[in-house]
Amino acid sequence: MKVVIVGGVAAGPKAASKIIRMRPDTDVTVVEKGLFLSYAGCGLPYYVSGEIKEQKELMETPAGVVRDAAFFLNVKNLKVRNRTEALEIDRIAKRLRIRELATGNESWLPYDKLVLATGASPVIPPLPGVNKKNVFTLHGVHDAEGIKSALAMQKAKDVVIIGGGLIGVEATEALATHGCRVTIVEMLPQILSMMDRDIARLVENYMESKGVRVMTATKAVALESRNGQEEFVSHVRTDEGDLPADMVILAIGVRPNTVLAQKAGLAISEKTRAIRVDEHMRTSDPDIYAAGDCVESTDRLTGLPCFVPLGSTANKQGRVAAINICGGDESFPGILGSTICKVFDYCVARTGMTEQTAASLGYDAITALVPGGDKAHYMPDSKILLMKIVADRKTGRLLGVQVAGPGEGAKRIDVAATAITAGMTLDQVAHLDLCYAPPYASAMDNLITAANVARNKRDGIMLGISADDVQRKIRNGEDFLSLDVRSPQEYATVRLPNSTLIPLGALRRRLTEIPKGKEIITFCAVSLRGYEAALILKAAGFADVKVLDGGMAMWPFEKETGQKMQGHSVP
Amino acid sequence: MKVVIVGGVAAGPKAASKIIRMRPDTDVTVVEKGLFLSYAGCGLPYYVSGEIKEQKELMETPAGVVRDAAFFLNVKNLKVRNRTEALEIDRIAKRLRIRELATGNESWLPYDKLVLATGASPVIPPLPGVNKKNVFTLHGVHDAEGIKSALAMQKAKDVVIIGGGLIGVEATEALATHGCRVTIVEMLPQILSMMDRDIARLVENYMESKGVRVMTATKAVALESRNGQEEFVSHVRTDEGDLPADMVILAIGVRPNTVLAQKAGLAISEKTRAIRVDEHMRTSDPDIYAAGDCVESTDRLTGLPCFVPLGSTANKQGRVAAINICGGDESFPGILGSTICKVFDYCVARTGMTEQTAASLGYDAITALVPGGDKAHYMPDSKILLMKIVADRKTGRLLGVQVAGPGEGAKRIDVAATAITAGMTLDQVAHLDLCYAPPYASAMDNLITAANVARNKRDGIMLGISADDVQRKIRNGEDFLSLDVRSPQEYATVRLPNSTLIPLGALRRRLTEIPKGKEIITFCAVSLRGYEAALILKAAGFADVKVLDGGMAMWPFEKETGQKMQGHSVP
Repeated sequence: MKVVIVGGVAAGPKAASKIIRMRPDTDVTVVEKGLFLSYAGCGLPYYVSGEIKEQKELMETPAGVVRDAAFFLNVKNLKVRNRTEALEIDRIAKRLRIRELATGNESWLPYDKLVLATGASPVIPPLPGVNKKNVFTLHGVHDAEGIKSALAMQKAKDVVIIGGGLIGVEATEALATHGCRVTIVEMLPQILSMMDRDIARLVENYMESKGVRVMTATKAVALESRNGQEEFVSHVRTDEGDLPADMVILAIGVRPNTVLAQKAGLAISEKTRAIRVDEHMRTSDPDIYAAGDCVESTDRLTGLPCFVPLGSTANKQGRVAAINICGGDESFPGILGSTICKVFDYCVARTGMTEQTAASLGYDAITALVPGGDKAHYMPDSKILLMKIVADRKTGRLLGVQVAGPGEGAKRIDVAATAITAGMTLDQVAHLDLCYAPPYASAMDNLITAANVARNKRDGIMLGISADDVQRKIRNGEDFLSLDVRSPQEYATVRLPNSTLIPLGALRRRLTEIPKGKEIITFCAVSLRGYEAALILKAAGFADVKVLDGGMAMWPFEKETGQKMQGHSVP
Repeated sequence: MKVVIVGGVAAGPKAASKIIRMRPDTDVTVVEKGLFLSYAGCGLPYYVSGEIKEQKELMETPAGVVRDAAFFLNVKNLKVRNRTEALEIDRIAKRLRIRELATGNESWLPYDKLVLATGASPVIPPLPGVNKKNVFTLHGVHDAEGIKSALAMQKAKDVVIIGGGLIGVEATEALATHGCRVTIVEMLPQILSMMDRDIARLVENYMESKGVRVMTATKAVALESRNGQEEFVSHVRTDEGDLPADMVILAIGVRPNTVLAQKAGLAISEKTRAIRVDEHMRTSDPDIYAAGDCVESTDRLTGLPCFVPLGSTANKQGRVAAINICGGDESFPGILGSTICKVFDYCVARTGMTEQTAASLGYDAITALVPGGDKAHYMPDSKILLMKIVADRKTGRLLGVQVAGPGEGAKRIDVAATAITAGMTLDQVAHLDLCYAPPYASAMDNLITAANVARNKRDGIMLGISADDVQRKIRNGEDFLSLDVRSPQEYATVRLPNSTLIPLGALRRRLTEIPKGKEIITFCAVSLRGYEAALILKAAGFADVKVLDGGMAMWPFEKETGQKMQGHSVP
């Protein structure tokens, strides 16, 4: 059997290796346009930052062997034709026309089965000046080298990153590590559009605290130059003004590479513009498979087509394609949109549906914002993790979880992804037997606590109110009691505007100080004490009591700081 | 409604708080024999090590308030009677006889519902000398203070820990941190009996590398003294000889505190000797609930009764008892025996069934040992994680996972616990959409790779052989080829005894050097290359080829080190 695979980065080599493992006598050829094979594209930001020292580390196996054509031949018995472009599929004759980039020679490769792993390419926005010399994407090794050499020449003090998605945010950290002043210009009202806005806003605030300027709802209009230096961008014109720029990174997103498939008449999704495949990773031609960043996936939760190009998915899909090509029967069940990125010391991650998606699909969603330590609070290295949980009120099913913060977030998101895959309800999540020891978790893990908070909300034991709604009330000058139940010391350091302090321990004996009939919004650092306070007030007959979702920890707006002893407090 | 709760550490206060939250008008009294309430018992090893500086940190809420009787009254509206012993339950009159330890005063507390959260106590082995002054358990705050003051007086250079379970291992790290020479004396053939022996042995080796002496299959016989110092142990007599001891820690395990329940005629499990409860946490008396370390749990996977006292379970059970007492309908579904502990820089954890348990229950188990980096291998802080996975060959269901190593293990165990709870198969686990970015995971997460290796074994694509079996062959002088396919550099540094080197990249062209008809066992550092080698050999017609499970990384026996260039290799 002859198998030809187009694409030598992730899904392609994975499919090729698996085919050889299952059917060693298969004649497998991998055609790759670039020079490099199986390089770790996801590692590029860490190569730019300097965390990864040498380019070749991105090309090596875990055992330190560079994955070149000789490696693939000797170890895997795969023929690799790199620097070779795939030009045309002849589906009738079952052959692929290729061109060697070095010589220009063209030839036809016959196949029994063809695998398209053509990947995706960065979207280049149609901005004036986009082709200037100090404008980069961060997609291939070449891009990374360009950025690194510009940095080495100390030419990039002011960097503008256009696009605040995953790549934009990862690039931000890499460049800030080099001492660049980074500005993110994002057209949407928030960065990281896979997160809900309330969580994204916390990440924006954090990035600002690290010296990054985050301009959301801002549109880049042109990349302009100083007179006489027309080859280089000197500033980025936006609808919010000009930004100085010694370097511009385009991080708008990526688009699936489908030209080859399209020209061959294979089905392309109208929604995602990616190659359509069935669960066997087969395209509309039964002898042509596709996998990785060029294909459309299905969201396991919504059943909707989606395009979330990730190395993890590419590897799984490559394996599935291989097994089916070798006569097996393997299905790729789809994805949950699980994504994670490191933003300085924050872990930002999500899986399943956001509140926004749930609402747009007509779910009556329960949400809870639950900040908490990522391990036992008395462990000196306990760090805060800000968590948002989304569930379906009707079925009680967990729909999605988002986290941000310095605490261990990957674990909770992976558990949530597993629970969502299994269709678990909040009740089931709350009873998971997760590992507990003080260096690793609290007795009640963050996810279990979040599930319990959501259950309390569902059962009407707790009534929450979002920071957005509270902020609106403040702006509108509405009459309500913003009741801070932390300690006087905590209050003196930082507090919400117009808040009143009654420490939780004193609340029961100071109930008479609280006006009846008024709307009361209770809170503390994380809203555990806020919740206790609301229960005390409700038991004492106060009718309209809400708890600020996520407490001070997840309040994204301005806070008052500096010494102020119970200034606004009822005496 | 009057609720009396016996026990003020974990399940007790949790139940009490939840009852007050659900039904604020309930009259709740917590009776606690000790001085301290809601203290973090699991944190004691870290208090002994000095990581946690002050005792009061173990008593505080996350907001830094000490949980004393005043706190419980003011914040929770709970009456707490500490230093008060519960003596007798009068089930007919529904009242509890108590005695104040300070005054000796006795009285009766009436109840509508009673909750027993009496916890567990360390087992004191019937050894001569067990009551001497430098013999401690590590259960309560008092024990920790005793150990700390002995350490402060620099009286404990040689410490013998009797028992190599969770507490023994955690105590080992705490004491080694203080510079003590620690010896663990364990009666069983391995430490950490909740792990399979192959994994436990890797932990034993690691502890030995940290200067700890681990004596398994060794029985302590007596705690003996020097003449004239009969109040103090000077050495521990074992069936393997005498061990010097300036301090002895008894860490045999804990036993549920059931005297009160037993005297009241409540059902006690014959198997675990813990209090029997139904899934509502109700004892054999419908007005008496029990929760936490004093009750028997059910294993969700086997359905068998078990006793795994943990703070995480206690908190969940306390909550379940409370909801049912308040008229709700909440079930505790049981546990998976998920446990984790920190051993110096190793994370050691497990969930579900071990291979041993699976075999004893009649499962035809597939196992795989899969070592691998805990994040992308090119990230400088990638650390190895040694993983064992156990699955049911018949149904393909995941049964259990165990990990050890410096890599991030908690995440994988928590995901496994969730997958096992959902009854997922290996195929389903392999397709989980887990988070991927280089700082957090590899494109194929360790658990996904492990599931794929187990699938390959199930499908007969890979035939494994355990280190135990290979070692037996070596000992018996059997004729087989131990084929190391790593690089010459790796081989020169460390290798298995009597192994032959042919680097993987040279294998295809050096096939003629390998004797046909002989049993071949291939391996590398982690057995990825070993697997590739086996496939090459099988494709080349070698009939009897096996892969060493877990490779060099999980080989628990002696290795050869130092320069030796291809000494045993076929030239």
